[in-house]
Amino acid sequence: MSAILEGTPDKRLALVTGRAYPEQAAETATYLGTTVLETTAYDFANGEMYVRFTEPVRGADVFVMQSHTEPINTWVMEQLIMIDALKRASAKSITAVCPFMGYSRQDKKHQGREPITARLIFDLFRAAGADRIMTVDLHAAQEQGFFNGPVDHLTAMPVLLDYVRGHLPLENATIVSPDAGRIRVSEQWAAKLGGLPLAFIHKTRDTTRPNCAEAHGIIGEVEGRDCVVVDDMIDTAGTICEAVRTLTDAGAASVTLVATHGLLSGPAVERLRDCGAREIVLMDTVPVPESKRLPNMTVLSVAPLLAAGIRSVFESGSVTTLLNGLPEDMRPRNIYA
Amino acid sequence: MSAILEGTPDKRLALVTGRAYPEQAAETATYLGTTVLETTAYDFANGEMYVRFTEPVRGADVFVMQSHTEPINTWVMEQLIMIDALKRASAKSITAVCPFMGYSRQDKKHQGREPITARLIFDLFRAAGADRIMTVDLHAAQEQGFFNGPVDHLTAMPVLLDYVRGHLPLENATIVSPDAGRIRVSEQWAAKLGGLPLAFIHKTRDTTRPNCAEAHGIIGEVEGRDCVVVDDMIDTAGTICEAVRTLTDAGAASVTLVATHGLLSGPAVERLRDCGAREIVLMDTVPVPESKRLPNMTVLSVAPLLAAGIRSVFESGSVTTLLNGLPEDMRPRNIYA
Amino acid sequence: MSAILEGTPDKRLALVTGRAYPEQAAETATYLGTTVLETTAYDFANGEMYVRFTEPVRGADVFVMQSHTEPINTWVMEQLIMIDALKRASAKSITAVCPFMGYSRQDKKHQGREPITARLIFDLFRAAGADRIMTVDLHAAQEQGFFNGPVDHLTAMPVLLDYVRGHLPLENATIVSPDAGRIRVSEQWAAKLGGLPLAFIHKTRDTTRPNCAEAHGIIGEVEGRDCVVVDDMIDTAGTICEAVRTLTDAGAASVTLVATHGLLSGPAVERLRDCGAREIVLMDTVPVPESKRLPNMTVLSVAPLLAAGIRSVFESGSVTTLLNGLPEDMRPRNIYA
Amino acid sequence: MSAILEGTPDKRLALVTGRAYPEQAAETATYLGTTVLETTAYDFANGEMYVRFTEPVRGADVFVMQSHTEPINTWVMEQLIMIDALKRASAKSITAVCPFMGYSRQDKKHQGREPITARLIFDLFRAAGADRIMTVDLHAAQEQGFFNGPVDHLTAMPVLLDYVRGHLPLENATIVSPDAGRIRVSEQWAAKLGGLPLAFIHKTRDTTRPNCAEAHGIIGEVEGRDCVVVDDMIDTAGTICEAVRTLTDAGAASVTLVATHGLLSGPAVERLRDCGAREIVLMDTVPVPESKRLPNMTVLSVAPLLAAGIRSVFESGSVTTLLNGLPEDMRPRNIYA
Amino acid sequence: MSAILEGTPDKRLALVTGRAYPEQAAETATYLGTTVLETTAYDFANGEMYVRFTEPVRGADVFVMQSHTEPINTWVMEQLIMIDALKRASAKSITAVCPFMGYSRQDKKHQGREPITARLIFDLFRAAGADRIMTVDLHAAQEQGFFNGPVDHLTAMPVLLDYVRGHLPLENATIVSPDAGRIRVSEQWAAKLGGLPLAFIHKTRDTTRPNCAEAHGIIGEVEGRDCVVVDDMIDTAGTICEAVRTLTDAGAASVTLVATHGLLSGPAVERLRDCGAREIVLMDTVPVPESKRLPNMTVLSVAPLLAAGIRSVFESGSVTTLLNGLPEDMRPRNIYA
Amino acid sequence: MSAILEGTPDKRLALVTGRAYPEQAAETATYLGTTVLETTAYDFANGEMYVRFTEPVRGADVFVMQSHTEPINTWVMEQLIMIDALKRASAKSITAVCPFMGYSRQDKKHQGREPITARLIFDLFRAAGADRIMTVDLHAAQEQGFFNGPVDHLTAMPVLLDYVRGHLPLENATIVSPDAGRIRVSEQWAAKLGGLPLAFIHKTRDTTRPNCAEAHGIIGEVEGRDCVVVDDMIDTAGTICEAVRTLTDAGAASVTLVATHGLLSGPAVERLRDCGAREIVLMDTVPVPESKRLPNMTVLSVAPLLAAGIRSVFESGSVTTLLNGLPEDMRPRNIYA
Repeated sequence: MSAILEGTPDKRLALVTGRAYPEQAAETATYLGTTVLETTAYDFANGEMYVRFTEPVRGADVFVMQSHTEPINTWVMEQLIMIDALKRASAKSITAVCPFMGYSRQDKKHQGREPITARLIFDLFRAAGADRIMTVDLHAAQEQGFFNGPVDHLTAMPVLLDYVRGHLPLENATIVSPDAGRIRVSEQWAAKLGGLPLAFIHKTRDTTRPNCAEAHGIIGEVEGRDCVVVDDMIDTAGTICEAVRTLTDAGAASVTLVATHGLLSGPAVERLRDCGAREIVLMDTVPVPESKRLPNMTVLSVAPLLAAGIRSVFESGSVTTLLNGLPEDMRPRNIYA
Repeated sequence: MSAILEGTPDKRLALVTGRAYPEQAAETATYLGTTVLETTAYDFANGEMYVRFTEPVRGADVFVMQSHTEPINTWVMEQLIMIDALKRASAKSITAVCPFMGYSRQDKKHQGREPITARLIFDLFRAAGADRIMTVDLHAAQEQGFFNGPVDHLTAMPVLLDYVRGHLPLENATIVSPDAGRIRVSEQWAAKLGGLPLAFIHKTRDTTRPNCAEAHGIIGEVEGRDCVVVDDMIDTAGTICEAVRTLTDAGAASVTLVATHGLLSGPAVERLRDCGAREIVLMDTVPVPESKRLPNMTVLSVAPLLAAGIRSVFESGSVTTLLNGLPEDMRPRNIYA
Repeated sequence: MSAILEGTPDKRLALVTGRAYPEQAAETATYLGTTVLETTAYDFANGEMYVRFTEPVRGADVFVMQSHTEPINTWVMEQLIMIDALKRASAKSITAVCPFMGYSRQDKKHQGREPITARLIFDLFRAAGADRIMTVDLHAAQEQGFFNGPVDHLTAMPVLLDYVRGHLPLENATIVSPDAGRIRVSEQWAAKLGGLPLAFIHKTRDTTRPNCAEAHGIIGEVEGRDCVVVDDMIDTAGTICEAVRTLTDAGAASVTLVATHGLLSGPAVERLRDCGAREIVLMDTVPVPESKRLPNMTVLSVAPLLAAGIRSVFESGSVTTLLNGLPEDMRPRNIYA
Repeated sequence: MSAILEGTPDKRLALVTGRAYPEQAAETATYLGTTVLETTAYDFANGEMYVRFTEPVRGADVFVMQSHTEPINTWVMEQLIMIDALKRASAKSITAVCPFMGYSRQDKKHQGREPITARLIFDLFRAAGADRIMTVDLHAAQEQGFFNGPVDHLTAMPVLLDYVRGHLPLENATIVSPDAGRIRVSEQWAAKLGGLPLAFIHKTRDTTRPNCAEAHGIIGEVEGRDCVVVDDMIDTAGTICEAVRTLTDAGAASVTLVATHGLLSGPAVERLRDCGAREIVLMDTVPVPESKRLPNMTVLSVAPLLAAGIRSVFESGSVTTLLNGLPEDMRPRNIYA
Repeated sequence: MSAILEGTPDKRLALVTGRAYPEQAAETATYLGTTVLETTAYDFANGEMYVRFTEPVRGADVFVMQSHTEPINTWVMEQLIMIDALKRASAKSITAVCPFMGYSRQDKKHQGREPITARLIFDLFRAAGADRIMTVDLHAAQEQGFFNGPVDHLTAMPVLLDYVRGHLPLENATIVSPDAGRIRVSEQWAAKLGGLPLAFIHKTRDTTRPNCAEAHGIIGEVEGRDCVVVDDMIDTAGTICEAVRTLTDAGAASVTLVATHGLLSGPAVERLRDCGAREIVLMDTVPVPESKRLPNMTVLSVAPLLAAGIRSVFESGSVTTLLNGLPEDMRPRNIYA
Repeated sequence: MSAILEGTPDKRLALVTGRAYPEQAAETATYLGTTVLETTAYDFANGEMYVRFTEPVRGADVFVMQSHTEPINTWVMEQLIMIDALKRASAKSITAVCPFMGYSRQDKKHQGREPITARLIFDLFRAAGADRIMTVDLHAAQEQGFFNGPVDHLTAMPVLLDYVRGHLPLENATIVSPDAGRIRVSEQWAAKLGGLPLAFIHKTRDTTRPNCAEAHGIIGEVEGRDCVVVDDMIDTAGTICEAVRTLTDAGAASVTLVATHGLLSGPAVERLRDCGAREIVLMDTVPVPESKRLPNMTVLSVAPLLAAGIRSVFESGSVTTLLNGLPEDMRPRNIYA
């Protein structure tokens, strides 16, 4: 009798989700041909949370989905607690799936004695037991370097491009960057759409009047054109709505807003309603509840993208190839249509 | 000219606080003869928090106070962010001061696939950069072992004993444990108060009727006596109010409730109002807002205890000696009186 | 020719053991349908130990068994050395199997300047290279949180229950807890045995005579009943033998002692011989040599439980299900019968 | 006799340097009122390096200076070796001083299967034993988050501003950003110099001719103005020299180039000689050897800035205050003047 | 539909190489029946390196080969960068293959304030993300303990022995150790070659003349014998050429030099040409370019040994068995023949 | 009132010891002008140990002395437990003082699947919380690289040299190395003693008779000379006693044995008694109990050396300077005289 017992290797994927946006996990599971693994989760009276997985996860590659929507600190903490439970339950690998990565804008110190909270969040995921991070369109690409391990940094650009190509008239379109910091992304959009012209909004000063208060100027031709303003997120919508007005004032034929993360915080919905944009196209990396919907708002599901990313990780494929677009059977849909 | 530059060593203490209970930090600072170091903290529209210290902390021993009250996950996260900022600002040492340690009841797995969230919280503090933890009356003493470093585990017992000695008639008193798991603490109370008699509530079964539903029994004499029920925390107050009724039914002359952590969640205040206790004595390890006050509730400030603990750490004294009571000038007060 | 070479994945289990209790490993291997992997181990003249594995372990899931019996420090160290050798020999995963976890009673600081040796032991296993711990009935369930990774915490309760159900007359039985701290476990026993009545021994004081020396009292009816005293371990047997006498004095018809860990240190055997218990039921989590056997002592093998736990880990099953009892072909046996 | 021996605390600073640019360390030491601690360093025949410190460093706060100039990998490795030696020689703290941080441009993944070498470099410093990093003008501010500890991120802006204020006629000046990504820095420059007008070069497309090759356009008025082009580094000088030509073609009265890091690699010197700039102002974060000097090149010493930063760390002052300029006795000088 | 998705496990090997000695990787790949995975690698103008893998490596066991030849610091750094890229690209395991481990001679402190650079190198590989090290004939066997993980320490001895047996007349041979520190290795050689006589060179002093300068003496009979001098490396060849002269002066019939690592730095080739050795036998653990070849130099390829080691790791075999020689189809060849 | 509280820095040294050799700690304390800090330590019945420090150690630089004598595993474990307690009691720094480092001979893998126990021991000290190691004459100097931090590697050579100079007639002396591996140390001895002649014992083979069994030969003149055999340790004394006989057979006038570590295990004392050596000189890095004393055995106290080392660490002096001998008031003494 041998002293070594041979066994049958197994390879198992499990998808779990926190309570922030369970519909997204369910849809992602459908694209993967599976279901979300059942979880018990509730709050104690003083706000502490409890989590438990109903089925075994031992030996499985587990993907822990959570949307970093409000109350954001609660949902981040719940995701950390889930990761701790998975680690102690002998999951083979743990991937934190954060379609919108909370705190990603706090990625550097502007002054002394500030935190770098974006790095902290990655550190907390590591401390809890995450082996890998999957996320979409980080505020700064440098943040991939905040994790000491693999980060599957997906981009919603192919999904958004696909929608724009299919739904907007582009023969008269111009891609507009809402500020100078986003010009490089806009250049990619313009190129991917067949070499569209480019414009951007900038804060400017009248050179003849030093110390004059700043105004907004437009670089590029926008008069009479269908402008597509591209940004990574719409939070309070202040800047982007100002851009719409600036473009309208400059004679744009129409203005369409496109962004990955539709946080739509505080006055955002009101501002968007009033700004005069023709259409607002977003991904649902955070849920967009009915109360925030506008008639001219299109919210595309990010689930196909996440499912494709998860499948690539599980099957050791290349996430990079997703940059060329999703498979035909994974075309996103307007979740409000 | 020497290649080694000699300098004057310095030793500096700084006290900072999150926004959960700033009054407590201010009071603690007063006992230390200093003030709270100024901090800028606010929320962004989507719930992300921002923190910055206004004065330099480089080279200082910094104590970061935060009360783990509701919304508990937000305040834990804010404390983690503050620690990250201190680490990056070159604080010499960072002590997380958590008068009530959130999640400390989730200290073990009762079933498979559960987290050990109490351990996770310690791990998160370590990951953020805390060198040391200071806390009061952990739910289980074993949790000190959840941190890979020093834990200054203070106890409010001397403070509470001091109050009880000064304000309650003890000649006819009996110490009561509200359940079997707390008997050892009750024995300490009885001994410290000069050998008071002891009793406890237990769940029991009628031995002549197997499978009979459980009832509550009392071990020890309580009839005609002034009962002092001692517990570590009062959360929803269900168990402890049932204990009051059981004691009253058994003929107790009066019932006083004493606990370190007055979480007073959900129906707690209503239950306490109606339960018939003569007095409820708590520490303010979490804030007890005016809306939760009852006429017969005494809330003692934990600030003197924290100040004494911090002073011991800073001056390399022994925290253990605090077990014998606070210095005369640090006697606690009823913060509502 | 492809730049990626495809291979056949393998999955191999190896069981190794230190010298503390090799018979247990051999029996566990038999239950698993394998043998113990051969190891060379001996002492140098000055007490240093040498260990080497005779067969390759590269790529294998290795379980390193060691019983923490006397000389306990030597056996812990030998297990650490074996783990180091496995790590350097490219084992795929290393599980330290410690049926009785040494030092698990030193799980908290009672006073300042004490160690938390139970945490230290977990830290040492981690430092040597263990990925996972498997153990039986820790002194405090919180100790699972001392390890930053999975702990398979098995319980001998189903095995002991199975024996008690099959060998003791239970119609007249009462479950007795030897002190207040063990009441919750006793409640589980009483429930699992069909709702048996419950009693416990407690240290008490005469309420009419403050400062009176403590005595032992009994809560619950024991007169004329077959008492089953349940504890986690019998070390020097002082407390438990005193319990037997207290129960006998109170008129118990018989007293049976049941415990997971039979350390039987120092005067234990003599005390047990003289205490008047009808039967003593133990697991062999540490070896019980012939010299310590008593005629009325039953020692059940823990090997079936360990084998079931190891199989669950290797096959990615759930250890939790073991709580419902062992498979039929793994029923434990009295290793002295 | 007490069991505790009291001692006199000491606080000592030591400055050591690799062989890349020892003159810089010597000058920095002079500003600090000390000398560089003597080090033995040489190469073995196969290129391995040897380092040893001649004087004790035990208990000292040591600053390890190295310029990441060519051969860059050798100098990074030498700095790592020095840090290892300091760690083993019981230095109290180790700060890696890297005036120009090598590889800081490789701060993110543009495609799959790329490294994030900027993060790796920080990891290597941590692994060798560095407690803290001091550097000047990182390529992306996010890189501070690549280190799990304090990063003293100095900026040369006040030094360069000071020079520009003192040496250039500014009444007719315009600040120019050489590409869109640097506009925010240029805005700071314009503001600090009293509200100068701003312009920038951008890659543009003719909106009437899609797919047309890119050209360079200028935003803002430059005709007849004294242009000051501000960038973080001049490596091969391709982009910046093209900017000079674009500005000249647009009628600029003069063009001055200002940058922190003068790498001046490959064809840089030739390009700068021919580009028509009036003056080129650089810091010596890497050495600028005589062979690379041009008549119209001003190289300001970064030593005063480093000395001020080191003094702040050693004396627990705030590095942030350096943003307001250096002390009077630390005004930089043209090292070629 | 189950919540667990079953997959097909895969096991993939990928071999990548830095630019130091790509021919060696190609040859190793051939022995493994695969090709080297394509990599893009080049230098930026300031000496920073760029690396990217052209094919996916996700889920693969990757072996990163690099020869630590001159410029040694550059090649070590390139290997570290490759490891970082692999870690971030989700390689399943990363093995750094260093046929000659740079800095392995700096393995201890001879004086205070020296580094232990050999340990540092292992630390850097760990920090970058290497899980395992494969190397050949470390300078001191203790260095395996510098890595906190598996080190596959191959030895070229069977390859060299195989060559010596096949090409040298041994009936009159004596194995010679060039200094006292290498005697034990020489004893192994003598034994493996059928019990050849042994001799060694030692530094000696004339016992009748204290303080006399040291000379070289020979222990054992060498007159008229074919001497085979065995060493681990030939760097500048000073010591070993002196050994040849000493042996020749003592009447040796011939002297053959055998070593694993032929660094051949500085004056080595000239010295070897002039020393009078009959043959010099080396492995190509670092490349031996045409410019360093001598007519009497034999350079054996280390590729078969590396391939056998890699295959053992990938197939979970035992590297130890390689000590008994390579498989027949992997016999080394003179790469110059 | 400032928000920063200034304090008086303190610097405190505490010396604690395990139970292996408390007399050594007491003597070391005397040399330091202090006493050993009181510790409570005892064994539980099952062999588990308990440790507690009686006085506060918060903020102190603590040196934890333990002799790795038999039962070696117990004493190593006790030292680890003490370190854990110090870490949790907020010691400022913890130095493990191990005059003889147990397991230091197991410093490499001779075969596959062996541990590197010497590295493991350093890892365990690190895991428990030691910041620094102080030890005397490691078996291999490379082992300093097993610790990721400072190792104060003291040598007893100056102490032993001092004794030899003062007590042995050296005009006719020869330094003898007991095997080839120790020649370099012997060379240092010969040089330090004014250029004494050198000899060594080697295992040899008759070159005329291949396969002949090995014998012992002597290199150098020993006939009529006073031989001083120098080794690092005497364990079972087999090799060294054989050396004495070989030297005596070769006509040595006398043979003196000198070693740092006198383990004197198993048959050592008997062998030493019978071997014919004139004198045996040892340090007491492990205790030499009365039962092991021989009339011609001199045991020098290592306490002065340890005290000097500790003082250097505490006062930030250089341990290296100890190589030149101890201060006059710290001359060692024969602890049996």
